[in-house]
Parts: sequence; structure tokens; C-alpha cells
Amino acid sequence: MIYLDNSATTKPCSEAIKAVNDALENNWGNPSSIHFKGQDASDLLEDSRRILADELKCSTSEIFFTGSGSAANNTAIFGSARSKGKRKKKIITTSVEHPSVNECMKRLEYDGFNVVRLKTGCDGKIKASDLISEIDGDTFLVSFMAVNNEIGAVNDIKALASAVRKKSKDVLIHVDSVQAFGKINLEPSKWGVDMMTASAHKIHGPKGVGLLYIRKGLNIPAYILGGGQENGMYSGTEAMPAIAGFAAAVKALPDKKEELKYIKSLRDRLIKNLETCGGIYVNSPEDCLPYILNISCPGVPSQPMVNALSEKGICISAGSACSKGHRSHVLEAVGLSAERIDSAVRLSFSRFNTMEEMDETAEKIIETVKRIRR
Amino acid sequence: MIYLDNSATTKPCSEAIKAVNDALENNWGNPSSIHFKGQDASDLLEDSRRILADELKCSTSEIFFTGSGSAANNTAIFGSARSKGKRKKKIITTSVEHPSVNECMKRLEYDGFNVVRLKTGCDGKIKASDLISEIDGDTFLVSFMAVNNEIGAVNDIKALASAVRKKSKDVLIHVDSVQAFGKINLEPSKWGVDMMTASAHKIHGPKGVGLLYIRKGLNIPAYILGGGQENGMYSGTEAMPAIAGFAAAVKALPDKKEELKYIKSLRDRLIKNLETCGGIYVNSPEDCLPYILNISCPGVPSQPMVNALSEKGICISAGSACSKGHRSHVLEAVGLSAERIDSAVRLSFSRFNTMEEMDETAEKIIETVKRIRR
Repeated sequence: MIYLDNSATTKPCSEAIKAVNDALENNWGNPSSIHFKGQDASDLLEDSRRILADELKCSTSEIFFTGSGSAANNTAIFGSARSKGKRKKKIITTSVEHPSVNECMKRLEYDGFNVVRLKTGCDGKIKASDLISEIDGDTFLVSFMAVNNEIGAVNDIKALASAVRKKSKDVLIHVDSVQAFGKINLEPSKWGVDMMTASAHKIHGPKGVGLLYIRKGLNIPAYILGGGQENGMYSGTEAMPAIAGFAAAVKALPDKKEELKYIKSLRDRLIKNLETCGGIYVNSPEDCLPYILNISCPGVPSQPMVNALSEKGICISAGSACSKGHRSHVLEAVGLSAERIDSAVRLSFSRFNTMEEMDETAEKIIETVKRIRR
Repeated sequence: MIYLDNSATTKPCSEAIKAVNDALENNWGNPSSIHFKGQDASDLLEDSRRILADELKCSTSEIFFTGSGSAANNTAIFGSARSKGKRKKKIITTSVEHPSVNECMKRLEYDGFNVVRLKTGCDGKIKASDLISEIDGDTFLVSFMAVNNEIGAVNDIKALASAVRKKSKDVLIHVDSVQAFGKINLEPSKWGVDMMTASAHKIHGPKGVGLLYIRKGLNIPAYILGGGQENGMYSGTEAMPAIAGFAAAVKALPDKKEELKYIKSLRDRLIKNLETCGGIYVNSPEDCLPYILNISCPGVPSQPMVNALSEKGICISAGSACSKGHRSHVLEAVGLSAERIDSAVRLSFSRFNTMEEMDETAEKIIETVKRIRR
């Protein structure tokens, strides 16, 4: 198998698997229990939180574990709306957000909020000038993604947050960083970001756990209510095996610069190979995060391409795993033609991929393109 | 270690651990991906759903995996309120619910709903006559628990649901069955229950996954929004390792009647042993589910008792793990004196406990009672 769908999910690393196992076999108490078995679990929870806080260069009190990246985005957005939405009604977001942001926005619109979706350039990014010109006295939330999940476009969080802050002191800034976390340095505290989200299974951790950063001093109400776990921000017995696996996966992350260099060399090799065949286009912007490569082979619809490669043991994706069957709103937003959109596929890489896999994948893609175009 | 806090969480069984591992090591695709790796994960997801549907004697289309029992209760309650709450405002629940129900009710009250909390008898149960006399034209939801998490009182779901249905055809019925699932037969479809919830980690499955049963034909909006997983009812990449572990734990459940008999013999042995010491009172009602035994030793406050036993390697609980530090609202509701409440501890059993453990536990409790009372 050649697995090139790492933006959908990743293979858990051995460190994460070991940590999950240990939490199941040995440290399986309820962190809320006051006896020693509970205290051991509570220690594991807080050790895990420390590892995540170190990764985001923030305080442990700013880290809240959730059930998924989606649950973290829901908590951030609905919490902001509940906190600020009585007096203010305007939210600024973008036209290329993940459904876990966009579907929340749609519900808030239905509930009477005014959601403005900024258009991106053909590079998939939003402009600071567009963002701040939309901020007015009625605006309480700005929400944008760090790295786009379909094309890999990278927003400059620091610059955007700083621009927002210059214009308004109290507009909340939420950043969905699910595709960025563990790949680029994120410093929400330093950058003045109020809320930031991530997910374990995109970085070789287990499915079933996400993370919400909430800036110290910001009080938003919880979304999932109950026993008051996660300092009241996310109730329900903590998903300890997954949380321990998340922390282990973060600990196992290689040096980001080194990994980025390697991933870029994988991607560049693949592109170079694909260029030997005519009529294959790169949709990802030049300055995108190289973990994601979106290409189009006009005349070869996305789904048959994915299926043909799957039969040859290669896993790639037509758009994101979360939007199976729908035409990509992201590729529409960056202004691609219908022909390019309908033949777009996404290849996404991890440190476990090899140069040989790039050669074989290019070969199989070209074979498929030639066969279907014939 | 003697672990008698099985209502807080349970030791994962070997079958569950194996299933989690297999999902991490081998079957780690994203169920939404259309390639073979995604399809394998999707098959595992649907196989797991079939096992849960069989347990609840319902259709697979009625089973929705969530992040926890709490998340399932939130989804059921807030979904009902969003669906019906524009026209009707009254909810009937009980005074002994778990915080994952009661905190949702508090928020709905804050938002203008009229929440009536039925008092229980000293047996911890609600009466069908009390329930139906509260149902009026403004009522859209009835929510009660199957088995109380602190004292083990069992509500007759079938009789209560049938009484509700006789009075009203369209009032929704939600049952929090977290402490009942896997222990008593639950047949929500047959009984006319609309929504029912459960959690894996209370039955030797992993933490991080719960279940929401929604009766076929009932449409309530989702609470966690995004990529539309779980047929749109619970977005976010499915927590596959935990889901597979949940199904394996259900498959490993012994015959319910046999297990109940064994658990009852454990509890009865413990009570008999404790009776040799004066001044230890059983707070659990006589007809309760024997998995839970709540006792009071007046003069010996709960926390020191839990700590003393913890030092001797025995895990028990002061109230539920979810309400650490607060005086039990359940024990207040069943009319216990302050003296009894402040000295109450909960012992909760599983099939992995032994008769010898009951003897040793009783001995250590009596030792502690005598030492502290002296």
C-alpha cells in the first residue's frame, strides 16, 4: 500500500499506539476519582496536557481536550456566539473553511447572526485588508483556518491576528489549525489568538481526540455540559487512551524544519514525475504547505481516478474525506474551472512516505490518465 | 488492588483492548475515504454498529456513535429542544439525574424553558402517576434515567414510557441508560422510547465513545456539526479505535441473568460482612440494581473513608466521580439525613470482582470505621 491521504487521517505512530495501550492496560482509572487509581489517570491527563501546552508554547490552563477537531471548532464558535452574541451579531470567516466551521456558521446564520465569508485570492489565502475592512462595532468573532485542507494554502496567522487586534481590542479570533498543528510552529498566546483547534489523528495520533486552546482570561461557556471535566469546558469522562496517544504522537514529532524539507522533496519529486505527462495541473498554490498537493487531470473525473489508484494499492482523495460526493467549495472559491474541479484529486504526505512511492504513484497516475483519456 | 468503583469507570476487557489495538495497528483509515483503506474502516464502523444495534434490539440506522455518554445526552436534549422548543416549552425530568442531563436542563431553563424535576420516593424511583400528571400541551420532552448512578435505583422504563405514550403521542421520551446498558435488557424500540444513551467505559470498553439511540422516523437536529459523519447526527472523524473497542466489549458481555446473579451474591456477601459492625447503613434501595451499593457510616466522613481505603489498595467512591467535592443531590433527593449523606460512600461491582475481595473490603471498612469513630 502507498498511503497518500494523510490530510484525511494518518497511520498512528508506534509511540501513540504504545501510549493508548498503556492507558487501556494499566492506567485506566477515571481522572475524576479521588482514589489512587483515579489519581494515576489524573496524572497522565495532566502530563499529556503539559506536552500539548509545550507544543503550543502556552500554559497548561489554556489547553482543553475535546472529542475531535470538529468538537473543538463547535465549542469555540458556539461558545463565542453564546458569550458575545446577545449584543453583537456579526462574524467574519472565509469561503474555504472546513465543514466543522462552516456548518456552525450556517446554523448561526439561521439563528439570526450575520456571517460574512471573505473570498480568497486564487492562492487560497485571505487578505488582512479585506478582513479588517469588514470589522465593525457589531463584529464579535473572526474565524479563519491556518492551512486549507484541500489545497494546502497557508494563512499568515500572526499577521492576520495582529491586523485584527489593531482594529479592535475585543473581537475574538478563532483559528482552525487542524491541518497546521504539528507541521508549522503555532504560538497562539504570542500572536494574540483567542481560540485555536487541532486534532490528534492528523499527526499520527489516534482518532477520537481534539484540542481547543483558549487564551487565559477569556471566558466562554462550554458547549458539551455535564460533570465539569476539562475545567468545565468539555464534560464527559476524558478519553484517556486517545489523550495519552495524542500526547505521545506530539512528543514523537520530528524537527519541523527537517520534516518540511523532506515532505517538500517528496512533493517536488512527484510533481516532476507528473510533468512528464501532458495535461496534469497543480491546483495547490506555489507557497502552500507541501504536505498537500492538489492536482487536476482534465478528462479524468476525480472519483474514477481515486478508484483506479485504490485498485493499484494507492490511497489518494477526491477533495477532503469530509465532503465525499460534493463538488469542492474550496476549488470553486479559488476560481478553478469546472473541468479542473471535476478532475481534482488530493495527495497528502507524511514522514512515513518515501521517494520510491512518489515514483510509483506518478507512474500509476499517468497510466490511468492515458487509459481513461484514450 | 481491589477495584470497587465500576460505576465511575471499568477496567477495559481484553477483547476491547485487542479491538482498539487492531484499529490502531491495521484498520486505521478514515471511514469517509472512498479508497480501500477508508472502506475497510467503514466496514469496521458498520460491523460495530450492528453489534450495538443487536444489543438494543433495534435497527443499525437507529444507532449513532458519540464521543461519550455525556455528549449523547447533550445531543438528545439540545436536539429535542431545538426541534420542538419553538412551540413548546415544558420539559419533565427528575431530581436525581446525572449532571450531563441536569446541566443541559439548567441551560435550557436559563434560555426560557420550563423544566419540572419530579421528586423520587425514598426508593429513588419516579412514579408514572407523577409523570403523567405533569404532562400537558406545552410539554415536548420527558427525560429520566434508567439506573441511578449513585444508589442504583431502577426505573421501570417500559411502564413509564407506556404511561407517557397513553397520555401523549408526541412527547419525546429520552432515557439516560448509561448505568443500565449491558446490565439489564433494553428494548427502546419495543418500549416506545425515542432516545436512549450509553457509554462504553462503564462496561469494560474504552473511554472516549458513547452511543445515542434515536428511534427511526424521529428527526432531531445534530448538536456537533461538520462533515456529516454518523448520518449527519454527530460530526467529526469517527473515534474508530474506541468504537471498535465498544463493540468488542458488548460482544464480550456475559449472559445478563447469570452476571446479575453473581453480582448480587458479591453485594450480599459484602453487606452481610458489614452487618457484623454496628452503625453501617445501606442507602441503596432494596430492589436496586446490585451493581451499586451505597452505604453510610455516620461519624466517618466520605472523603476520609475513600482515602483510607485507597491507602489500603481499595478503590471506592464518595458519590459519583462526576461530582467530586459536592454534597450528593441524589442522596438529598431520596431524603437521607445530613449525617448519612456526609458519610456516604459508593461501592460498585463488576464481573471481575471476587468473593474474597468482598471479605477483605468489609474487613478494611470496619477497621476504618472503628479507628475513626474511636
